[in-house]
Amino acid sequence: MTGYEIQPWALRWHGLSVPDLRRTESTFALSNGHIGMRGTLDEGEPRGLPGTYLNGFYEEHSLPYGEGGYGYPEAGQTVVNVTDGKVVRLLVEDEPLDMRYGHALDHERILDFRSGTLRRHTEWESPTGRRITVRSERLVSFTQRAVAAIHYVVEPHDDLQLVVQSDLLANEPVEHRGGDPRVAAALDAPLVADFAWAEGARAVLAHHTRRSGLRMAAAMDHELDVSDGVRTGIHAEGDLARFTAAVDVPAGGALRLTKYLGYGWSAQRSVPALRAQVDAALAGARQTGWEGLLREQRAFLDDFWEVADIEVDGDEEIQQALRFALFHILQAGARGETRAIAGKGLTGPGYDGHAFWDTEMFVLPVLTYTVPDAARDALRWRHSTLPKARERAVVLGQHGAAFPWRSINGAECSAYWPAGTAAFHVSGDVAHAVAQYTAATGDVEFDRECGTELLVETARLWMSLGHHDQHDGFRVDGVTGPDEYSAIVDNNVYTNLIAQKNLREAALAAERHPEKAGDLGVKPEEVRAWRLAADKMLVPFDELLGVHQQAEGFTAHAEWDFARTAEDEYPLLLSKPYFDLYRKQVVKQADLVLAMHVRGDVFTPEQKAANFAYYEARTVRDSSLSAGTQSVLAAEVGALELAWDYLAEAAFTDLHDLHHNVHNGLHMASLAGAWIAVVAGFGGMRDHSGLTFAPRLPPSLARMAFRMSYRGTRLCVTVGREEATYRIVSGGALRTEHHGKPIVVEPGTPLTLPIPEPPTPPEVRQPHGREPVRREPRP
Amino acid sequence: MTGYEIQPWALRWHGLSVPDLRRTESTFALSNGHIGMRGTLDEGEPRGLPGTYLNGFYEEHSLPYGEGGYGYPEAGQTVVNVTDGKVVRLLVEDEPLDMRYGHALDHERILDFRSGTLRRHTEWESPTGRRITVRSERLVSFTQRAVAAIHYVVEPHDDLQLVVQSDLLANEPVEHRGGDPRVAAALDAPLVADFAWAEGARAVLAHHTRRSGLRMAAAMDHELDVSDGVRTGIHAEGDLARFTAAVDVPAGGALRLTKYLGYGWSAQRSVPALRAQVDAALAGARQTGWEGLLREQRAFLDDFWEVADIEVDGDEEIQQALRFALFHILQAGARGETRAIAGKGLTGPGYDGHAFWDTEMFVLPVLTYTVPDAARDALRWRHSTLPKARERAVVLGQHGAAFPWRSINGAECSAYWPAGTAAFHVSGDVAHAVAQYTAATGDVEFDRECGTELLVETARLWMSLGHHDQHDGFRVDGVTGPDEYSAIVDNNVYTNLIAQKNLREAALAAERHPEKAGDLGVKPEEVRAWRLAADKMLVPFDELLGVHQQAEGFTAHAEWDFARTAEDEYPLLLSKPYFDLYRKQVVKQADLVLAMHVRGDVFTPEQKAANFAYYEARTVRDSSLSAGTQSVLAAEVGALELAWDYLAEAAFTDLHDLHHNVHNGLHMASLAGAWIAVVAGFGGMRDHSGLTFAPRLPPSLARMAFRMSYRGTRLCVTVGREEATYRIVSGGALRTEHHGKPIVVEPGTPLTLPIPEPPTPPEVRQPHGREPVRREPRP
Repeated sequence: MTGYEIQPWALRWHGLSVPDLRRTESTFALSNGHIGMRGTLDEGEPRGLPGTYLNGFYEEHSLPYGEGGYGYPEAGQTVVNVTDGKVVRLLVEDEPLDMRYGHALDHERILDFRSGTLRRHTEWESPTGRRITVRSERLVSFTQRAVAAIHYVVEPHDDLQLVVQSDLLANEPVEHRGGDPRVAAALDAPLVADFAWAEGARAVLAHHTRRSGLRMAAAMDHELDVSDGVRTGIHAEGDLARFTAAVDVPAGGALRLTKYLGYGWSAQRSVPALRAQVDAALAGARQTGWEGLLREQRAFLDDFWEVADIEVDGDEEIQQALRFALFHILQAGARGETRAIAGKGLTGPGYDGHAFWDTEMFVLPVLTYTVPDAARDALRWRHSTLPKARERAVVLGQHGAAFPWRSINGAECSAYWPAGTAAFHVSGDVAHAVAQYTAATGDVEFDRECGTELLVETARLWMSLGHHDQHDGFRVDGVTGPDEYSAIVDNNVYTNLIAQKNLREAALAAERHPEKAGDLGVKPEEVRAWRLAADKMLVPFDELLGVHQQAEGFTAHAEWDFARTAEDEYPLLLSKPYFDLYRKQVVKQADLVLAMHVRGDVFTPEQKAANFAYYEARTVRDSSLSAGTQSVLAAEVGALELAWDYLAEAAFTDLHDLHHNVHNGLHMASLAGAWIAVVAGFGGMRDHSGLTFAPRLPPSLARMAFRMSYRGTRLCVTVGREEATYRIVSGGALRTEHHGKPIVVEPGTPLTLPIPEPPTPPEVRQPHGREPVRREPRP
Repeated sequence: MTGYEIQPWALRWHGLSVPDLRRTESTFALSNGHIGMRGTLDEGEPRGLPGTYLNGFYEEHSLPYGEGGYGYPEAGQTVVNVTDGKVVRLLVEDEPLDMRYGHALDHERILDFRSGTLRRHTEWESPTGRRITVRSERLVSFTQRAVAAIHYVVEPHDDLQLVVQSDLLANEPVEHRGGDPRVAAALDAPLVADFAWAEGARAVLAHHTRRSGLRMAAAMDHELDVSDGVRTGIHAEGDLARFTAAVDVPAGGALRLTKYLGYGWSAQRSVPALRAQVDAALAGARQTGWEGLLREQRAFLDDFWEVADIEVDGDEEIQQALRFALFHILQAGARGETRAIAGKGLTGPGYDGHAFWDTEMFVLPVLTYTVPDAARDALRWRHSTLPKARERAVVLGQHGAAFPWRSINGAECSAYWPAGTAAFHVSGDVAHAVAQYTAATGDVEFDRECGTELLVETARLWMSLGHHDQHDGFRVDGVTGPDEYSAIVDNNVYTNLIAQKNLREAALAAERHPEKAGDLGVKPEEVRAWRLAADKMLVPFDELLGVHQQAEGFTAHAEWDFARTAEDEYPLLLSKPYFDLYRKQVVKQADLVLAMHVRGDVFTPEQKAANFAYYEARTVRDSSLSAGTQSVLAAEVGALELAWDYLAEAAFTDLHDLHHNVHNGLHMASLAGAWIAVVAGFGGMRDHSGLTFAPRLPPSLARMAFRMSYRGTRLCVTVGREEATYRIVSGGALRTEHHGKPIVVEPGTPLTLPIPEPPTPPEVRQPHGREPVRREPRP
């Protein structure tokens, strides 16, 4: 049992389970992409892993190497648990509310996807027999990015004295599980107190980090609504500010506290400037008020669901999981505003809070087609890191820009280059996301200001990474593709095809914006060289087997002995040396299959079917980045049940904790993979050159509907068993394709079209023991 | 100016140069393979890097990883500077002898290759104007492996009071340059005192290491010979034992001190047992006496030079360098006795005191053909580590035995697996050395007791590392060959050919020793499988270019831009990322060329010429393991001047400090490479299936002679410009070949044969700026 209740628009957990706190704090996390708060209990304890994060706020630590090498990054970065403003403690007649003691008569938490709040309802009897009801509701505002707020209500069942303590708490002790002692040291009390102030119901704490030198401030203000006289106090010192209210509440009465939180950080600004910033955020929040914040939050989400909702008839748990996924992707990206979208969003400390390539290849497609401004801002973050990417290219002996494998501030933090820096596809992935965003939005301003430069600089990287061989093929040698069970290979198909697109898009962008191209020193010869390299790009194919090689030589490698690999040996990277994984035909995650999705335009249907079957038999899905993509290709080759199974796997990664690590944060790319499986898989959406669809339902479903935005038009596609309906929700007419047939969808005139028979799927099997769970439809 | 004087049988340095101490301490180091003492001054200071080493005595430290991985070694090992017994301090009328003060009127050090001692002669005037002559002579005994001794003589020019202090000194403060703080911490006072005792002129100190738990003892005893009354004292405490003698010496008189040192260590034995061991060593040494030790030492070396000497007419500096090389190789290996021969021997702390593959491929050939018992003992060390190598194979998912890339005790210590553990050829190199030793000696006992097991277990490794592909070729994928500017490649030619030989030799050994093979579980099917894999071994060849590929795909990789690589960017590994080096056609060290030496039987002369020219143009020799091998192939393809240049480079690696790191110890494999260049290069010696020669002189030489041992016969080959003479020095007749013609050399009947014209060499060029120094003959 997962413990979650299935509801279409909320995630609900009933009862208290202390061992489950750590993982539910991730799933119940609130964020707007700027501030992130894990779903801890108001009273702070019991807890799993407390966490409050500010996007881009990190501490540095040195990276150790047993044997170093030129160009290895010296400094790592790791997200910091900043000043915790979530804490509201309660004393009931001197007894602290702690659900491990007394009796929790009723307890539930609800993450509401439409209100954008985390609600809590608890009935508790203290060890001395006092009964109270606590209701709280917490939000991190989508509309006021520096603001969070908590509405906290206590109703005593008898006349009781209540004391509420509302804290700002810096340097909470947090255990660091496993890992490097240097990281642990960097994160042990990472904040140095600069300033503390309190007056009335307001307090401010300012801190900075030791090594990265970033500065932050947190402020709180309170509104108290009680039925009787109250005595309040406030004080602030280095790492703690506390507002205290003591009040006698009669049975039937209530204590109502609203806590407003303001957060700000900067690498540049002074303490007074930061204080002014959080004061202003608080002033705005108080002006809006709690009810106002709730209204704004709901309006923001209503708009989101209008453009992004997915409906599934026939599987309520997947229905819930898909909305959970969309809600968290929105939370991760909504207000990032030129900061990275981390692999875990702001839901936990996993991966040190780093952003990876999967932001561009998984998360940004969702945002590009639902909240395009958020996608734009994430790409503007990449653009803002171009100076670092150019420097990195120089260190690596290359031209153009080399984006980091993992980073918070744009500098490479990967301490193992074969599976990090060598994965140069990350730069092509950025280019791919740029081209996809530009095509989907027609955002000329971004294209000119940022997109062209990103495309040109990444194209230049490919020109120096690759070379024309004796046979005039363009090779990209010694790089690592998406599959992390291979490394340092020649001509990885995914990488080469991403590079090919990158080069062509750069050529087009340079022609669209000749002035910008001129500023970047682009000459016509350079553009010709890009196009020539793209045209000659080598894509290895095994003629004997009739399949593409993930990379040159891949299909000649030894097969992995799946029959003798025990279930508990997965994920293989924890039980097998990289050495042996790299040299055999075992695939961690979709690689060639991902190439067939995002560059599906260069594979024939027969190749797709043969390749899919070949790689399916060798892919172990030890990565959460795989199932969504396998779903897309399974659907395309006609394996619709399998596609449904994979969609379920992607959607349940976090809710079913499939990788046993959701306590460290959610898998944003896997959540995005669920959306991709719906829209690109069953919706058959592609955007190779213009938007196209090829919808088709899995056998177990009666109906599925998804929505998206394209060039300002909001579209809803409803897929039935026999036919699909295209409807304009808002905006102008849309030119697209349905199963290869050009169509125009006019506003006010839904278009219903028959769905052709699916192709006969190839015979497909997975490695022994790695078959996906068969998804039975649930009532 | 190197500062060394050219002499045929000694290395002499005149005058004091403090900045040069560090490197001359390496070249003047004494060792017998068990004890090593750097060539520090008797009085301890000034000094470069003091160092006393016991073969196999190391401390452990944890290996750090920014990002760890399964099977990464957790512990590193590093050689420990043990209790220093070399120190003999002198006070001249209260003024300590310190050559940085006063006047060094004369000062020289001489390493004598025939006496096997380091002599020192100093005339010094103290700051207060007192003059003395100090003569000392130091030896580390070849005949009594636990013993070293110093004969120290002071002659005052006036009547003087002299005080001599002779120390055992543990935990000398040593600065650790660069590198990992954990290693530095492990080596900061690495010895924990267990026991100290002194009486009369004798003292003993016993210590152990903190983490590796090894225990050692050092003891000293003294003989004092003075012309007048003397007052002596001794005391011992934790880290210091000191014998003091104060004496008034008249002008013309002398103080003569003989210091005997005994060393022992053990992982098992108790302090009393170790003490007994060093006491016994001292008792033996005193029984033999200083003159006796000198005689034994000379006799040992006379015998060595009879079997190993090389004579060169026409280049006195190379003459000296070759004897220097042979002397140090002997020192490194003579009395290792089932301990490793480290990359630096026992001459310095470089490479942490680890042994690598080059012991088997460079050092052991020299020993096999000169001091075969030393080669046997080094291979017995490998045999003794088989349990660790089997464990390692299991961790790596392989069968058989996987020998470590670098180690002191047999456990893998490599913290960067792509250039460490992945270099599986090390196991094939061990097998190659085993087969070579067995063929050269006919040592049936070793073959049965150790050799067969080593061959069988390494053959099993290859069977699990490789597989038969669809075309029935046997592939070895994802490994690293000798060239450290490539890594994780498929079908490295060197590796595959070493594996091929390994498999065939294992099959032969199993047939020679069926009982042993039975004990090892070898079945006829297994032997057949070895032979089949060997027969089908894939050896990639580029048909377009007509050359072998160092590894599959190598010749399709981008060329390195040598024209734009500045001189100060070499060695490239310090200025370029591995990533870029690995993916381009830039070769650190002979790899395919080494394959053409040790497996020259499978290349045609045309292939050798074409391959040599191709790889010569891409080899930068950033490794000291390269020049010797390039010399061998240059000679074989007829490029005799180039071969001579490379011989010089190998021979001068340490004397000219070509890699700017001789201060950390000598490059044993490069010294061995000089011997190989003489014997296999200009002597054309090969041992593919029986011993053969193809001697040929470089243009600048009039005559060269070398000696070697084969199956108990000592042979001298003298090469002139027109003819070569084969002469039996001792032992029976020898069947061999001269330039392809079978001959029998009978004792007492030297055989003189004409030398055919050399082949026309291919056109050869090196990378821009990496041409070897042209060696002009010196008078």
